[in-house]
Parts: sequence; structure tokens; C-alpha cells
Amino acid sequence: MDSQPNLRLFTGWVLIAQVLGLTSVILVAVWMGSYRGGFAWQEDPGREFNYHPLFMIIGLVFLYGDAIMVYRVFRTERKTFVKILHACIHVLVMAFAGVGLKAVFDSHNLHKKGTVPAPIPNLYSLHSWLGLTTVILFCLQWVFGFVSFLWPKVALSMRTIYKPIHVYFGLAIFVMAIATSLMGITEKAFFSVGSPSYKGVPYSALPAEGVIINILGMVLVALGLVVGYIITNPDYERQPTPEEEHIPLDQ
Amino acid sequence: MDSQPNLRLFTGWVLIAQVLGLTSVILVAVWMGSYRGGFAWQEDPGREFNYHPLFMIIGLVFLYGDAIMVYRVFRTERKTFVKILHACIHVLVMAFAGVGLKAVFDSHNLHKKGTVPAPIPNLYSLHSWLGLTTVILFCLQWVFGFVSFLWPKVALSMRTIYKPIHVYFGLAIFVMAIATSLMGITEKAFFSVGSPSYKGVPYSALPAEGVIINILGMVLVALGLVVGYIITNPDYERQPTPEEEHIPLDQ
Repeated sequence: MDSQPNLRLFTGWVLIAQVLGLTSVILVAVWMGSYRGGFAWQEDPGREFNYHPLFMIIGLVFLYGDAIMVYRVFRTERKTFVKILHACIHVLVMAFAGVGLKAVFDSHNLHKKGTVPAPIPNLYSLHSWLGLTTVILFCLQWVFGFVSFLWPKVALSMRTIYKPIHVYFGLAIFVMAIATSLMGITEKAFFSVGSPSYKGVPYSALPAEGVIINILGMVLVALGLVVGYIITNPDYERQPTPEEEHIPLDQ
Repeated sequence: MDSQPNLRLFTGWVLIAQVLGLTSVILVAVWMGSYRGGFAWQEDPGREFNYHPLFMIIGLVFLYGDAIMVYRVFRTERKTFVKILHACIHVLVMAFAGVGLKAVFDSHNLHKKGTVPAPIPNLYSLHSWLGLTTVILFCLQWVFGFVSFLWPKVALSMRTIYKPIHVYFGLAIFVMAIATSLMGITEKAFFSVGSPSYKGVPYSALPAEGVIINILGMVLVALGLVVGYIITNPDYERQPTPEEEHIPLDQ
């Protein structure tokens, strides 16, 4: 056995993850932009809603995936730099998720004001329950991570206990975000393409929009598989630099 | 550091996994049995469909979860026994999944024969695309696992390369099965409780059925989190028995 980590294919997998992540963002943008009427802020509830899937996927899927890979991607950089980068990308994630959530609540509430016939209640579907749980866990994870590893940094023994929990929930929340996206995509597909009032080819006959919807979902799953592989493969684990070896567990 | 593995809470987590798995089976049975008209085989498409969620969750979620935990649960048993148990539970999973798939195809096709007005096409939704992918990956994984580790057993070097792939896909397929279930639950919720023709309290007003649906989904996610934790926690990893130490990598 070689003590050097086996980094074969690492760069290839990271590139594939970027391509899948960007493809999912493009697909959801095309779906909302070209098939669902485009985007508008606080004037048309239907088009304000369209920001919701776009921003959630940019934030909690694409950027989140990149954030959890930084330790392995920037393996030769100083640990503190990588930690700060990790925390900063997650702040971006939170910003996108926040605006994405505002878009869907606004859209539902604008409906209520009578702009369109049917009022839409908030937080009744399984999608919303899991989504809210995911966002809350994400925020808790960020706060616990910041306090434990960045500032003020809790005692080393506590960090040693918390780190595997942080790592486990880091991947779990990513997977939950993808699962929530898949449910949201399913809801939207049946609400719009699948609804009886829809004029075009129904979802069940797989029009172009239906194919885009299904490919978007499959790309999200593929992204989850690739990112999951990259961050759980022990060969790809970041090795401590020589200086860090002297201060073990400074993590 | 102690060389003995830290098994604190292991039994507790396994018990929680069993409770969550059984709860999900009971919830889907109650949903289909009490709210969706119960079960019937090849006479009423609506009630034949009801076998689909029940059998998929019993098979690809509950039993599958138990199958991937056997190495850790039966840690003191002989490796060969545990391998055979692992393969046998997965045969049961395949049986349940097979009947569960037959139920949904039958149900769609019975619709086509004019038993009820609307014909339902097969394999158009994202749920069906991901579900089919999951079942195909599951079957491939079973065949590759059997050939590699049980009979005829491929060369040790090949098994050493394949084992981490088998382990990774083992968890990935489980997570994909849960994600597919969540999409299926979402579809069924909006088709039945959420449909405009539904006479009772709509899904959006969260009737008892809607609450059962959402709790079922959240229980499946919790089960995924607990099983995922049990099978990825290095403390809980099965240690080779003294005899196995002499024939390392006999896996």
C-alpha cells in the first residue's frame, strides 16, 4: 500500500459534478423561463413562483455541493482558508435559499390577495415539510459549524466529537435538498403540465417540457451520486499539511 | 484510543431503525387500506394500485434497510453466514419489488381496458424514471455482488476493487428508493386527496389523510438518516473474527 492518496480520476469526477450542477441550473432556468412564462418579482404570483425552483437549486444543490467539496478540491491550501471558503459559500447558499423561499411564500400569498382565483395555503405538502426541515437543519448546521470550527472554536475534545456529526449531516442535508427538489419538481409537473386545464400535450404523453422535467430530476440524482462519491471516497480525503501535522485535530 | 470498537448506542439505533421501518409500513398500509379503499388483485385497478406503495416500501425500503445492516447487526456470526443472509433478504426485496411493480403496471393497463374512464400511460413520470433506474441498479448490484462475493467468487484483487463500489451503491440505491417513494407519495397525494374531483377536505387543508401522508414521508426520511448513520459510522463496522484475520479480505 502506498501512503500517497490515490487521486486517480479525482479531477474528472469534480468536473463531472460541475457539469451536472450547471446542467441542472440551466434545465430549471429553461423550464421556468421558456415553458412557465419566465420570471417576475411581486407582480405576478405564477411568475414569482418560478424563482423558487431556480434559486433553491442554485443554492441548496449546486452551490451546496461545491461547498462540501472544498476540503478535497483545495487540498493543498491552508485549512483556515478552506474553512472560511466553506462557510462563505454556505452564506451564499443561505441567501439563495432565503430569496427562493420568499418567492414561494409571496407567490402563495399574492394568490390569496385575489390576483388569481385559487388561494394557495402554505406548508401543507410533504415537499414543504421536508423542505422546511432541510432549511432549518442547514441553518443549525451552519451555526454549529461556525461556533465549533471557526469562531470562537469550542474545546478540541468537543470538536473531535462533533466533526463526524457535522460531516454526516453535511451530506445528509445535501441529499435531503435533492429529495425535496424531486418532490417539488413532481408537484410542479402535475400542477402545470399535468393539470386538466393545461392546453398542450399532457405530462403523461411526455411533451418536450415533460422530458426536460424528467431529465432535470435525473441530473439532480446523478449530481447527488457523484458529489456523494467524491466526499465519501477515503482516497480523496484531504491530507493534513506538514504544519497541521504538528497541531493535529485543528479542525 | 481503544482498539475495541465503540458500540455505545448501536443497539438503540438499530431498534429505532426497526421502529421507523415498521411505522412506515403501517402508515402506508393504513393510508391505502383505510383511506384509499383497500386492496384487490386484478379486478379493480384503483385497489390493485394500492399494493404498489405497500410492497415497494416493505421491499426496497424496510427489508432493504435491514439487509444492508446485517454485517453490523450480526457482527459475531461467521462472515459466510452473514453474506448468505444479506443475499437472501435481498431476494425477498426483489420479490416484493416485483409484485409491487406488477401491481402498478396491471393497474395502469386495467385502466386502459376501459374498466374506468381515463387510461394511464406507463413510465412517463420522473417517479417512474427514477424508480425503474433504482430497480435496475438494485438487480445489477445483486448479480455483481453474488458473482463477486458468494459464487463463483472472482479473484481477490477484483473483489478488493469492487467492494467499496458495492458498499457505496448499496447505500445510494437505498437512498434512491426512499427519494422515489417520496415522489410517489407526492403524486398519489395530489392525484387523490388533492384532485379537484375529491369530495373530502383537500390535501391543502391537511385532512387526517394528508397528515398521515406527510408523516409517512418524514418517517421514511428519518429511517434513511438512521440506517445511513448505522452503516457509515466506522465505530459500528464489523471487525474480522480471529479466523478471518488469517484470511484477510475474504469478503
